Amino acid sequence: MTKRIALISTGGTIEKTYDELSGVLSNQVSVLDVMLASLELRGVAVHRVPLMNKDSLEMSPEDHALIAQTAARLAESHAGVVVVHGTDRLAVSGHRVVELVGTPASPIVFTGAMRPWELRSTDALQNLTEALLAVQLVAPGVYVAMHNQVLRFPGVVKDLERRTFVKAGG
Amino acid sequence: MTKRIALISTGGTIEKTYDELSGVLSNQVSVLDVMLASLELRGVAVHRVPLMNKDSLEMSPEDHALIAQTAARLAESHAGVVVVHGTDRLAVSGHRVVELVGTPASPIVFTGAMRPWELRSTDALQNLTEALLAVQLVAPGVYVAMHNQVLRFPGVVKDLERRTFVKAGG
Amino acid sequence: MTKRIALISTGGTIEKTYDELSGVLSNQVSVLDVMLASLELRGVAVHRVPLMNKDSLEMSPEDHALIAQTAARLAESHAGVVVVHGTDRLAVSGHRVVELVGTPASPIVFTGAMRPWELRSTDALQNLTEALLAVQLVAPGVYVAMHNQVLRFPGVVKDLERRTFVKAGG
Amino acid sequence: MTKRIALISTGGTIEKTYDELSGVLSNQVSVLDVMLASLELRGVAVHRVPLMNKDSLEMSPEDHALIAQTAARLAESHAGVVVVHGTDRLAVSGHRVVELVGTPASPIVFTGAMRPWELRSTDALQNLTEALLAVQLVAPGVYVAMHNQVLRFPGVVKDLERRTFVKAGG
Repeated sequence: MTKRIALISTGGTIEKTYDELSGVLSNQVSVLDVMLASLELRGVAVHRVPLMNKDSLEMSPEDHALIAQTAARLAESHAGVVVVHGTDRLAVSGHRVVELVGTPASPIVFTGAMRPWELRSTDALQNLTEALLAVQLVAPGVYVAMHNQVLRFPGVVKDLERRTFVKAGG
Repeated sequence: MTKRIALISTGGTIEKTYDELSGVLSNQVSVLDVMLASLELRGVAVHRVPLMNKDSLEMSPEDHALIAQTAARLAESHAGVVVVHGTDRLAVSGHRVVELVGTPASPIVFTGAMRPWELRSTDALQNLTEALLAVQLVAPGVYVAMHNQVLRFPGVVKDLERRTFVKAGG
Repeated sequence: MTKRIALISTGGTIEKTYDELSGVLSNQVSVLDVMLASLELRGVAVHRVPLMNKDSLEMSPEDHALIAQTAARLAESHAGVVVVHGTDRLAVSGHRVVELVGTPASPIVFTGAMRPWELRSTDALQNLTEALLAVQLVAPGVYVAMHNQVLRFPGVVKDLERRTFVKAGG
Repeated sequence: MTKRIALISTGGTIEKTYDELSGVLSNQVSVLDVMLASLELRGVAVHRVPLMNKDSLEMSPEDHALIAQTAARLAESHAGVVVVHGTDRLAVSGHRVVELVGTPASPIVFTGAMRPWELRSTDALQNLTEALLAVQLVAPGVYVAMHNQVLRFPGVVKDLERRTFVKAGG
C-alpha cells in the first residue's frame, strides 16, 4: 500500500546554504535530506533523484528540457513526482512538461521557497510538506504547490509583488 | 476566489504548553495562532473557532457530540473544516461526525500531533500544514491528515505502536 | 594554551526529553552532547563526565555527596569544572562542595535550566554557554551561572517566585 | 544591585536580514531586540544604543572613531559596555578604544557573529550571551568575547582560516 514518490532536486533558494567567508547564500550542498529527516512520512517511499543544484536564473534551455524529460519519465514508474526548483524559472520548467507530454502518467508537483531552509523564517518545510501531500491527492497533471495553494499548469506565473505563484489572469 | 476554511481547536498534545513550576506539559493556552502566523496561507481565509482546550483522554460523550455537531454545521457555510484534536480520542470524534451526517456538506479534516508544538522536534506544524492543504483537495467526507497521509473515515484507528493513524484491517 | 574543563552531568530539567506514548518529560538520555555540538568552543577542551541522570528532587544525600566529591576531585586536575544539575536541589550540591573543601583547586560552576532543552523556548543553551564562559573567568570557588548572573556559594538559594537563583537575604 | 550595561549596536553579520526579492543578506533592521527578548537577563539593566547598522567592511575611519568615543564615554556612566560589531573590522574599533583611553572606566566587550542570527545555525546568540556575561566578570579593559573565549586588546586579530579571533603571535 506504500506509494512510491520520486523527488527530483534541481537547486533554487530552498537549498541555498551560507558561506562564512564570503557571507553569501548559494547552492553548494543539498539540504533536502535534512528536511526530509525532519518530516514524518508514512505511507510513502521517497526516491531521491538529485538532478542539479542551480539557482534557476542560471538554468539553460537544456536544463529545463532535462528537468521536464526526467519528471515525465519518472511519472511513468511512480505514483507521483515532486520537483524542488528555484521559483524564478519554476514556471518555465512546468510549462515545458506540459508541452512535452500534455498530461503525465501520474501527478508532477513543483515546489520551492522564497526563503532558504537555512533561515529560521523559511517557508521551505511548509512547501515541501505541501508538495509531498498534494502529489498523493490530485489527478495526473502538472502543478505547483506552495503557500497552502495548489495551482495547475498551464497558466501559472510567479507574482513578484505578492511573492508567490498565481494563475495568469486570475 | 479565496476559500473560507473553518479551524476548530479542541486542545490535545499539539497545544500543550510547559509550566516551569510544575514541570509538566498541559493544555492551558492555545498556540494555534502562533502556528498559523508562521505559515504562509494564500488563497484561504481561516475562521478560528476555539471550542475547548482539553486532553482528549478527558473528553466526555457530550464533548465528542459538540465537536461533531459544530464541525458538521460549519461545513455547510465554509469550503472546508479543519479540526485540531488530541490523537487519543480523535477517531471517536471523527466517527461521531459520520454517524451524525454521513457525508458533510464540505470536507472535514481532523489533525493533531504526537509531540507538542512547544518541542523543537514537534510534528505539529507538519500536520497542520497538511490538514489545511488536504481540506482544499479532497471530496466532501470526514478525514484525518497527519504524517503525510490522508485517511478517510470510517475505519480510522490510532496505531499506538506505530504512533500514527491507520485504516482498521489495513 | 587550551584550557581543560570537566563537564559533569547529573540530569535535571535541562536534560529532560519527551516520551510520545506517556506524554511526559523525564530524564532518559543525555542531550548535553547535542547542546555542546551546537556551540562553538574555542580555547577549551571539554571532558564529559556523565555521573547520573536524575530529577534533583529524587537525589539522595549520597547522590549530593558523590556530586560534591567528584567535582572537588576533578577541580584538582582541570582548569575548571561545570556541573549540570536540576535546579530544585542544585543549591544542596553547591553547599556540599563548600562544606567538603571550602575553596576548590579551580572554579566549580553549577548550572541548569527552568525549561528543558527540548522546548523551543528553553533557557538551557543560554545557561550552559554562561557556565562554560564563567568557569574561565572567575577565581577558584563554587558558583551558579544562569540567566546572565554568576552567584558565589555559600548563601545561594532558588527563588521559586522569580524562577531563578538569588543570594539569601539579597 | 542591578548592574547598568550599555549595549551599542553597529551592524555586522550578526544583524543581517534576508531580502526575498534580491535573495541577499544585508544590514537593514536591527534584530538585537529580538535576540535580547529570547534571553533571560537577571541582575542587569540593558541600555540600548543603536549607533549605526553597517557591514564593518564599509566603515570609515570616522565610524571607528565614533564607535570608540561612544564606548569610552558610556563606560564612565555604566558598569560595562557591550559593542555588537561586524567581525571584519572589529579589531580596528577595539584598538581605537585602547589608543583613545588606554584602560576605560569599566569593561568594554566587543562581540559579533560569523553567521547571521537569521540562520538556524547562527553563533549570534552564543556570542551575545557571552559578551553580556563577560562584561560583568572582567576587570576594566577592552575585550572581544566570542566562541567561548574572552581575549583582551591590544593584540587581537581575526583569524580568517580558523574563523574566529586569536591573540597575535598566540
